[in-house]
Amino acid sequence: MAVDRVNEVKKYLHRADKTALGNFLGKLHPADIGFMFQDLEFEEKLSILSLLDFEKAGSVLSELDPGERSEILLSLEPELLSHIAEAIPSDEAADILSEVPEEKAEKTLELMEEEEAEDVEELMKYAPETAGGIMTPEFFSLSEETTVDEAILALRREKNVEMLSYLYVVSEDGNLSGVVSLRRLITADGDCRLKEIVNRDVITARTDVDQEEVARLVRKYDLRALAIVDEKGRLVGRVTVDDVMDVIEEEATEDIYKMVGTDDEELSKKSILNVSKLRLPWLLTSLVGGIIAATIMKSFNVTLENVIALAFFVPVIMGMGGNIGMQSSTIVVRGLATGRIDLGHIWGVLFREIRTGALMGLICGVAVGVAAHIFQGKVMLGVVVASSMFIAITVAAAVGALMPLLLKSFKIDPAIASGPFVTTANDITGLLIYFFLATSFIRYLG
Amino acid sequence: MAVDRVNEVKKYLHRADKTALGNFLGKLHPADIGFMFQDLEFEEKLSILSLLDFEKAGSVLSELDPGERSEILLSLEPELLSHIAEAIPSDEAADILSEVPEEKAEKTLELMEEEEAEDVEELMKYAPETAGGIMTPEFFSLSEETTVDEAILALRREKNVEMLSYLYVVSEDGNLSGVVSLRRLITADGDCRLKEIVNRDVITARTDVDQEEVARLVRKYDLRALAIVDEKGRLVGRVTVDDVMDVIEEEATEDIYKMVGTDDEELSKKSILNVSKLRLPWLLTSLVGGIIAATIMKSFNVTLENVIALAFFVPVIMGMGGNIGMQSSTIVVRGLATGRIDLGHIWGVLFREIRTGALMGLICGVAVGVAAHIFQGKVMLGVVVASSMFIAITVAAAVGALMPLLLKSFKIDPAIASGPFVTTANDITGLLIYFFLATSFIRYLG
Repeated sequence: MAVDRVNEVKKYLHRADKTALGNFLGKLHPADIGFMFQDLEFEEKLSILSLLDFEKAGSVLSELDPGERSEILLSLEPELLSHIAEAIPSDEAADILSEVPEEKAEKTLELMEEEEAEDVEELMKYAPETAGGIMTPEFFSLSEETTVDEAILALRREKNVEMLSYLYVVSEDGNLSGVVSLRRLITADGDCRLKEIVNRDVITARTDVDQEEVARLVRKYDLRALAIVDEKGRLVGRVTVDDVMDVIEEEATEDIYKMVGTDDEELSKKSILNVSKLRLPWLLTSLVGGIIAATIMKSFNVTLENVIALAFFVPVIMGMGGNIGMQSSTIVVRGLATGRIDLGHIWGVLFREIRTGALMGLICGVAVGVAAHIFQGKVMLGVVVASSMFIAITVAAAVGALMPLLLKSFKIDPAIASGPFVTTANDITGLLIYFFLATSFIRYLG
Repeated sequence: MAVDRVNEVKKYLHRADKTALGNFLGKLHPADIGFMFQDLEFEEKLSILSLLDFEKAGSVLSELDPGERSEILLSLEPELLSHIAEAIPSDEAADILSEVPEEKAEKTLELMEEEEAEDVEELMKYAPETAGGIMTPEFFSLSEETTVDEAILALRREKNVEMLSYLYVVSEDGNLSGVVSLRRLITADGDCRLKEIVNRDVITARTDVDQEEVARLVRKYDLRALAIVDEKGRLVGRVTVDDVMDVIEEEATEDIYKMVGTDDEELSKKSILNVSKLRLPWLLTSLVGGIIAATIMKSFNVTLENVIALAFFVPVIMGMGGNIGMQSSTIVVRGLATGRIDLGHIWGVLFREIRTGALMGLICGVAVGVAAHIFQGKVMLGVVVASSMFIAITVAAAVGALMPLLLKSFKIDPAIASGPFVTTANDITGLLIYFFLATSFIRYLG
């Protein structure tokens, strides 16, 4: 179906049949048009955008990956950009304008209606991954003294609201007193004043709160919109649940990509050179770890030459330590991200991971020890391999669980703990334990 | 703050001061009460639940991890369970009742109001991770001929609606004709009939659609609720955006946990034996891979004995292949989950990963080759190590990208491709390539 659509669009473009193309695009949702873009040439994308009305063109742009969007934005004139920015919600306009070169953004803002431009400029000041950066400054607020019937009338007159979830009620001095849900408004008595039905127990967040925290609040309390206030407690915007869905998905993707040492940007990068640049730091760390491992093995050359069979079990001991460490760190990283683990329970988590590690180390150690014994017919080789595996796995579980907790308590993103550093450290620790044990018991191994 | 709350609750419980405890709990959100449960004893949890009204007790239960909840549900009487199930939305009641033993669930359903019980029983028939399993069957629908004023009046009378987002409009024959948003309703003219303002272009999903697909639709089209229809096209329920937030988070967590061979259940398991059972299959696969690696090295015993230095580079060659394979598979798995990669673009993705793999293989190969040469003073050792690394990494990138795409096209969850099978396969392939090359050039290495 998606392929059919692309073919149909290409056919109209080829025939230069703007009317037919316009009609066809008119029936499509912006998300579907955006999805087609990955199969279109750059010039084709521009032709399509020029055929859409400003609002739809803006919505399509909002659907694109940042990389793809930047490329297109570079060829749009400030004149056109200003119309698009006026037609879409100002938070989306701010996102788009932060991606164009500064000079062009300024020109675009000058061409926009003053009030709209101010809103957008205000939003561009906030860091992108904060409450301020994802909020929309459009909200609908009324005074506490308004009656329900007046409020419904006022809502009927208001056209410029992206998506209404709550009606914000403000006190005389302009501070937020609470919210009234549309449902409450419709079901309340018409003469009732808003201050009588307002829910004062309202959860808010400041503009500088991290978007992850915003998502956690919305999810935890099942909110449809979170009121965002400035440092003085004045209502400045709101974050709606659809913004939060995007945050949840983005943050999860970010954490997953960090686990394998790459980045969300990866999919929007076109050149393999750029992709490689993203991934190489992680790989090179791992490579350096591998070269350190080689150096360690070289320094135990004599042990190895005496008992060549020791080499056979190097990969499995290093690998298993790395695996368990990654399990422990991932469990803790994700638990911290979803709020199921918090720093108040740090010792419980650590202790549990160590005990789990010890149990699995015991099982894996015995299994590999028996295999080593059968392999070489030497009991002591089995004992050395088994004990090394047991110690390496237990240490790896402890390090894996501890690292993200430590990073978090130092306010560093714990997700990097799932990356190569912990795995490499565990690999090398495992190797050292193995060769120390093997060298100590060398006389029983020969 | 969370700790203070727990201490306060424990204080009241210790004093058996039910009034003070009731007052204190009354001020807390169910999500906050649920969060405290991890620091309370089993008996304390039961005391708290017995002090809450049925609705709040039900909401607290809905907030708990499945493992923790099952334990509590076992000690609640059917009588109490039936009151709780009646007080909460029927989709939550169905979730809770599917977790109690069958006999008890039946008894509970018998004690419930007939209509409620039927709703809940109906929901329990759907598989938990489908549209039917996460939908709520409560929705508000009116005939096409209703006027806006009548609709608002009808809404005011309706109390039993969890959370209204859309008003569903049905035709004479009971089929869904479309939706009217509350905002559209409020802003429309009072005499207008619903059929004049209904949005007929409504996106629906069938009850048997996977919850991931439901989440994708809601997110893609920025819906506040998705209408769920049965096989005959009749409206049977809706999935709201807050259910979808949970799905997005759960699915991401599931994918992350699958990457390291464990499970979302892990955090709710209390005993380390149960946690180990979850993790062991993955570890044992890896362990078997390690023993296969040991067997391979043993079969190349002669080569190894001649050039012991070959052993030093086994860990780095195996490790790097595993790393790149995991990067490629993770990129593809996550891309498929978020919809940024689809099966229509399979060759483009594969080709890109292979080229990226080759470039990184070249860089890492040269780096490790130079290191090997410096290490041993033998040019050919460097060449063998470098070429093995290059080939191993390129193959690993191809396998890593291909596996999830293959699994997906066979309708198997691609996330398992990030697990141990691909990594283990890549480890062993890398090792084989290395030893074949080394054996072929053995006369230049000695």
